Amino acid sequence: MIEDFQHVSITCRDLEQSIDFYERLGLKVIKRIPDVREDGIARAFKRTQANLTVAYLAPPRAASKLFIDLVQWLEPSAIGQAYPALNHVGLNRLAFCVLDIDATVSALRERGITFLSQEPQVFGPGIRSIVTTDPDGVFIQLIEGL
Amino acid sequence: MIEDFQHVSITCRDLEQSIDFYERLGLKVIKRIPDVREDGIARAFKRTQANLTVAYLAPPRAASKLFIDLVQWLEPSAIGQAYPALNHVGLNRLAFCVLDIDATVSALRERGITFLSQEPQVFGPGIRSIVTTDPDGVFIQLIEGL
Repeated sequence: MIEDFQHVSITCRDLEQSIDFYERLGLKVIKRIPDVREDGIARAFKRTQANLTVAYLAPPRAASKLFIDLVQWLEPSAIGQAYPALNHVGLNRLAFCVLDIDATVSALRERGITFLSQEPQVFGPGIRSIVTTDPDGVFIQLIEGL
Repeated sequence: MIEDFQHVSITCRDLEQSIDFYERLGLKVIKRIPDVREDGIARAFKRTQANLTVAYLAPPRAASKLFIDLVQWLEPSAIGQAYPALNHVGLNRLAFCVLDIDATVSALRERGITFLSQEPQVFGPGIRSIVTTDPDGVFIQLIEGL
């Protein structure tokens, strides 16, 4: 049966641009697979072909083995836009825990990361959170205290 | 700075229906928050209001503290459809590791779970995988050997 989470996958339009964003967030590339051509992937997802370039990323101090499987599709190429709103049906948001959200936000702003609100917002007793979006518009949430 | 992954959020149309699906997959509800009304959430995500009903789920043997934040939006209600294809830009797929994919697939089929392919597909040396979709169409992948 299911043992654990393994990864979350983000389909991006430009792998290098997305890697740069997630590295500025503080994640590290733990593996790159530059040219994936797998008929098995195509069959598993009912695609006629699957030619991808991939990077795995994770926070360097993460306790888990979870990673982001960041995928740029080459053939077929990427389609569409990320969900525009949080109440859009689907896998919609990826949240990271931070110890000091004010210091984190300050440091990330110096690296050019922008946020949807000026300040972290209070979500409940002791929980503060702020949201950014990746280069394709994926909601990335930072949470202190949950 | 970012310490670790914390959760992934899935916006669903019907919380009970989605909980039933993820419980059949083998996940457990670890927390329910039936009526969330948080101006902070609305402000953080640039919504005018946020009234949600929420369940947190995780695999019972998970080594990490990661969880799925399964959200049914009440006000505003959910919009749209989940990404229809894996090469659609965005947070697109959630993968779980399994020890014995054949036994898992067999057990899940007995619980009414259907998969996109008849058999697990080979993804690389020693890696086998199969894909299902949740009640809203979110891609859920089971992986053995990665």
